[in-house]
Amino acid sequence: MRVIYAVIPAGGSGTRLWPLSRAGHPKFLHPLTGSTASLLQATVDRLGPLTTAERTLVVTGTAHVAAVARQLASVPEENILVEPSPRDSCAAIALAAAVIARRDPEAVMGSFAADHLIGDPQRWREVVLEAVRGAERGLLMTVGITPTRAETGYGYLQTGDPVDGGPLRPVAEFKEKPSAEVAEAYLRSGRHLWNASMFVWRVDVFLAELARQQPALHAGIVAIAEAWGTEEQDDVLGTVWPTLPKISVDYAVMEGAATAGRVATVPGDFGWNDVGDFHTLGEVLPADADGNVVLGADAKPGVLLRDTTGLVVVPHSGRLVAAVGVHDLIIVDTPDALLVCPRDRAQDVKKVVDELKERGEEGLV
Amino acid sequence: MRVIYAVIPAGGSGTRLWPLSRAGHPKFLHPLTGSTASLLQATVDRLGPLTTAERTLVVTGTAHVAAVARQLASVPEENILVEPSPRDSCAAIALAAAVIARRDPEAVMGSFAADHLIGDPQRWREVVLEAVRGAERGLLMTVGITPTRAETGYGYLQTGDPVDGGPLRPVAEFKEKPSAEVAEAYLRSGRHLWNASMFVWRVDVFLAELARQQPALHAGIVAIAEAWGTEEQDDVLGTVWPTLPKISVDYAVMEGAATAGRVATVPGDFGWNDVGDFHTLGEVLPADADGNVVLGADAKPGVLLRDTTGLVVVPHSGRLVAAVGVHDLIIVDTPDALLVCPRDRAQDVKKVVDELKERGEEGLV
Repeated sequence: MRVIYAVIPAGGSGTRLWPLSRAGHPKFLHPLTGSTASLLQATVDRLGPLTTAERTLVVTGTAHVAAVARQLASVPEENILVEPSPRDSCAAIALAAAVIARRDPEAVMGSFAADHLIGDPQRWREVVLEAVRGAERGLLMTVGITPTRAETGYGYLQTGDPVDGGPLRPVAEFKEKPSAEVAEAYLRSGRHLWNASMFVWRVDVFLAELARQQPALHAGIVAIAEAWGTEEQDDVLGTVWPTLPKISVDYAVMEGAATAGRVATVPGDFGWNDVGDFHTLGEVLPADADGNVVLGADAKPGVLLRDTTGLVVVPHSGRLVAAVGVHDLIIVDTPDALLVCPRDRAQDVKKVVDELKERGEEGLV
Repeated sequence: MRVIYAVIPAGGSGTRLWPLSRAGHPKFLHPLTGSTASLLQATVDRLGPLTTAERTLVVTGTAHVAAVARQLASVPEENILVEPSPRDSCAAIALAAAVIARRDPEAVMGSFAADHLIGDPQRWREVVLEAVRGAERGLLMTVGITPTRAETGYGYLQTGDPVDGGPLRPVAEFKEKPSAEVAEAYLRSGRHLWNASMFVWRVDVFLAELARQQPALHAGIVAIAEAWGTEEQDDVLGTVWPTLPKISVDYAVMEGAATAGRVATVPGDFGWNDVGDFHTLGEVLPADADGNVVLGADAKPGVLLRDTTGLVVVPHSGRLVAAVGVHDLIIVDTPDALLVCPRDRAQDVKKVVDELKERGEEGLV
């Protein structure tokens, strides 16, 4: 089995998972997996057969690097790349690619979000290995998710006909989050996949495409990479990083590369979930006979549920959570904030966070 | 204005107000009044124009006497009577009556629960003064509540025709909590009042009736009262109290006295509420424009309500309580337990407490 480099951008605060997820302790640091592993740890575990700790790199912010370093004790310190400030995904991924390229210029790297759940890791690894084969042929590969519903919350990949009868399909276009009507059409087409921001490519191919489409960003990253590991590293990073364009890798590189015919995808069907909100979380974690999901069910004193169905309960404060006669509610109990919200309003949790910011309650977000 | 003795039996844990009300910190100690006063303090305040601190007696249990003493700083220590163990209301009230009788054998006393709300205290005092006039004539008086609905959760007083065209009516019978059908008939009859366990009588009249109907209880109370204030007090109380019959004053004395034609009542209409559960509490406290009631609305960080109606929220843990898109729910947040329950299931909160006891979670009840 080919050993790839794995890059894990660990950013984003998971606003819709408030009050569990906070700016200071975001989604990927939490055990939302039904086990004691955090989403970040589960991501590393899932990569186990595809890479090694020495070839695993995490890109994270200054606020979370200490927690990341402790959660991932096996990852070497020099593989934990710290962004001095958030510059969106292109800068983060490009930095990792450039650092890897200094070690192995033709290395294949895969980039995988730190905060997604995969129900069938074995199947996922098989799909990633198909993508690795495409990457070795010089393609910028993505792993697309076979849609199961007309989701309006994700971007889509519009694909062409399979290549050589294999699993690879060219990606004709990256599509923004669609309207409900368009999403229905995508679902019916059979040609559209969810864009889960999983990428696999040779670092030299990616960096060349970056140079072609984003020359300024490329030049900055190259300057940083040349200073990497020298005593100049901090100075160069501190000077150059803030000048880098704040842009997503999809928009900066992948869309243009797709237009140029350089992007392909492998459709995957492995129980992917981006754990975007508590309703979604409730759909992937095991429920009791009444459809209640308790995250951290072994917490003490835990929960007392009477005549409840379809709840998502997070007893995360060490207090008893008692619910009587309620249905399809989200109840999230943390040491300094409590949330009660119907599952079909799970998206609106973001609005609570916005309102708290307006109130100046930064300590609670 | 006649100055009466006021007796406040302060017992009962208010199980349906869990998790706010606990065995160790029951309902009457909590500020459920919309102000910072506890129900107990509000009871004493309401009595202000009718009595003095020197003529106010509280009967309470060993577990709560310290809190009672601190909440009622003006009540003399010797007026805080401590039951060594719970013996129901007859023993508690009889002890107070006997202690008062030693100070003033013909005193009029009124007994008023520590954990009820009165919307119109001035009107209430007027009704009590009507009852005092009946007591002075040798009647065992009650204050009955004009029913506003066919309530099945209260006992009723069945009254006869008004006496001499005044507000007094004889009480023919004490009725147990009725079925829904019977309650409807009571409501239609115009002759039935809610029994709110408010009593007004001359202590000598009450003690004589106690001696007639409950000679053993009377003898025990007399023995205790004779030792009261002497160095024998603790010994006699400790020896005799546990032998007293455990019986309510309604059942022990008032029912038989009514049959003997010695009980009358004054109907009252002064916004009485027994604050039995959170739904009821929500009905008496001021609501916002959307019908949400927040008990302790000035708590910090308090609550954040979005698209909610009809809530009863108790933010009592110092944490933020955020609710989105929920309606007619009770949300009670305390330092070690959280309750979420629809208002129409408010009665079932008792079952949660029962289940916690079964689990051995005594620390939470």
